[in-house]
Amino acid sequence: MNALAELAATGRIAVRYRVATADVGAVAEAVRIEQTIEYPLELITDGFIRDEVVGQVEDVTQRASGSEFTLSFHPDVAGGELSQLLNLLWGNVSLFECVRVVDVALPDAVLDVFFGPRFGLAGLRVLLDAPHRPLLTTAIKPMGLPAADLGEMAATLAIAGFDIVKDDHGLANQPWAPFRERVRTVSAAVAEANAASGNHCLYMPSLNVPSDRQVEAAYFAKESGAGALLVLPGLAGLDAMRSLADDPALGLPIMAHPSFQGSLVVNADQGLRHGLLFGLLARLAGADLSIFPSHGGRFSFSPEACADIADSCRRPLGGIAPIWPAPGGGMTLERVDEIANFYGLDVALLIGGALHRGNLAANATALAEKVRELGSAPTATMP
Amino acid sequence: MNALAELAATGRIAVRYRVATADVGAVAEAVRIEQTIEYPLELITDGFIRDEVVGQVEDVTQRASGSEFTLSFHPDVAGGELSQLLNLLWGNVSLFECVRVVDVALPDAVLDVFFGPRFGLAGLRVLLDAPHRPLLTTAIKPMGLPAADLGEMAATLAIAGFDIVKDDHGLANQPWAPFRERVRTVSAAVAEANAASGNHCLYMPSLNVPSDRQVEAAYFAKESGAGALLVLPGLAGLDAMRSLADDPALGLPIMAHPSFQGSLVVNADQGLRHGLLFGLLARLAGADLSIFPSHGGRFSFSPEACADIADSCRRPLGGIAPIWPAPGGGMTLERVDEIANFYGLDVALLIGGALHRGNLAANATALAEKVRELGSAPTATMP
Repeated sequence: MNALAELAATGRIAVRYRVATADVGAVAEAVRIEQTIEYPLELITDGFIRDEVVGQVEDVTQRASGSEFTLSFHPDVAGGELSQLLNLLWGNVSLFECVRVVDVALPDAVLDVFFGPRFGLAGLRVLLDAPHRPLLTTAIKPMGLPAADLGEMAATLAIAGFDIVKDDHGLANQPWAPFRERVRTVSAAVAEANAASGNHCLYMPSLNVPSDRQVEAAYFAKESGAGALLVLPGLAGLDAMRSLADDPALGLPIMAHPSFQGSLVVNADQGLRHGLLFGLLARLAGADLSIFPSHGGRFSFSPEACADIADSCRRPLGGIAPIWPAPGGGMTLERVDEIANFYGLDVALLIGGALHRGNLAANATALAEKVRELGSAPTATMP
Repeated sequence: MNALAELAATGRIAVRYRVATADVGAVAEAVRIEQTIEYPLELITDGFIRDEVVGQVEDVTQRASGSEFTLSFHPDVAGGELSQLLNLLWGNVSLFECVRVVDVALPDAVLDVFFGPRFGLAGLRVLLDAPHRPLLTTAIKPMGLPAADLGEMAATLAIAGFDIVKDDHGLANQPWAPFRERVRTVSAAVAEANAASGNHCLYMPSLNVPSDRQVEAAYFAKESGAGALLVLPGLAGLDAMRSLADDPALGLPIMAHPSFQGSLVVNADQGLRHGLLFGLLARLAGADLSIFPSHGGRFSFSPEACADIADSCRRPLGGIAPIWPAPGGGMTLERVDEIANFYGLDVALLIGGALHRGNLAANATALAEKVRELGSAPTATMP
């Protein structure tokens, strides 16, 4: 058990920060105040507030570069709610230029508040009748196509054997394929394709909708026959995703899209470690699958960041189920073996626009066959 | 009229990007695809999609450092909704390490979709009976105090002449002062203080609440007598703030808090220009006041960034009202003249914990008198 996990085992919220300035001790002092009382510490006369409510410095490690420190917090500071937990982890400190959160450990008292993903790794394997292999997912696109064309494309992918066919996340309520028309049309097309093929493809509309219509849109999707939901937590808010996942009457698998979240992770000296955002927080917020740009593309995460995300999606986390890392970007038939070797079989492959070079049906079928071979190969192992 | 405004005048959404890599042309090509069709351009046979839906490169300016390019987009790509407009401006491109949005110009067709702030600069001057002077605001704190103590503190500030007394944004639903108890207690205390003093102080609870209880919490606050709302758009989502501002039955002024938003602006080569987030987007999303850390503190924005935010809050923007820049951090009685000289009188001063050094009532009264003097001084001018 590492030092953070040991702190969490004592019931404290533990956060490890890396600091790109010389005066790590001063930053640690500033952060423990800024994230809790925002008040001059020397004016606090109440012993409980000074000793329990204010964050405590647990460790300061000064290095020539990349100094680190650990704070711990009373679990009640998080108030039993995801929004305040997020605020505690990365609220005001997000305004500091030189601080990155590199690790978080949560005590059971905090983890137990969250249901996490409704399906997760195991639940989607059952739902999709895919006991061993990677999942195969892609998006209908490009923006500008009418709903009927998007429906035809989705049907082709469903018949080929794709597990999830999602809206491109930028499909919103544009005049070319308005939300309701698109969801109705594509849901019907995928249902028909499933009936004809015996496949279990889920159509996943993008809930890129106004905040005050999100619940209505989610239920409209369900009632139209859509089998899953794509949520953009960088725009909708992580807690809005959590509220959809927690709704038992809705009960649809959720995939998180990283739109608008990039600045939280891509700046080396600032933000959150990749796996914390796309693994830990995605799970607390109820995602069953977590999209990120896989290594190997032109503007993509490093192999280390990708491995961190995959590990953070799947490692033990109290009673919260493991979820599917969904690497996207630059995925082709030729790279499937490489990608499965890197991520293992508990991965949802998100295939991009290259699928459309040549014949879509033939490309999609070849990919689906390739992925099914992976699941039955006796040598397939987890990394 | 600058080049971006000229593009907007032709009906296009115009976005200017700065790029920290050598190959600016390739980045421009990647971004115009990534933010729209996410599909190989050479496979597009439909002329409308290729010419209208895909972003267009309007200008590429290569420099030894800080190359820039301008893209323009068909207004329908934004789909008439804030969430998709945000996705267009900073969705997938947020995952690029080397790109910063430095300017945005929106055509009337897009601006006209948004109501913007319900009160804005002028509306709050009427509501608070403050025709000329800066507004004076602060937070009740620290976290850990019971509701009764917070109420007493709020009453002291209301009697002293503060315009807005907000919850510290980290006050959520902690056991020491749960949301409903706190809102009820502090609202009553401020109402009593106003009745006794003849002042117009607004108590502004923090809507740091679960997403699915945000509307209920806002109405609970209103029905309890709270006069305004603090929203955390970095956690709740900018569009959730917009939905609260747009609700005519709610009708309360809204202050935006920058929690969780820092990574969007503080990395020099990545993210959004400060004024775009805390000015333009805050206004589109309905904030009446926009908080940011003013220059002069230890971990605060530069004077240039602060001036940019203040200008972006107050400059003409179609039919969308100007709003209050609300600089916070390191504000003391001694700095009021300097701050008013920098920002002018159309500013909401957010006074921090230093107010509590010594006697709160005396400090608060001195500040309120000082701010009222500013509003009546014949030499007071806008910068």
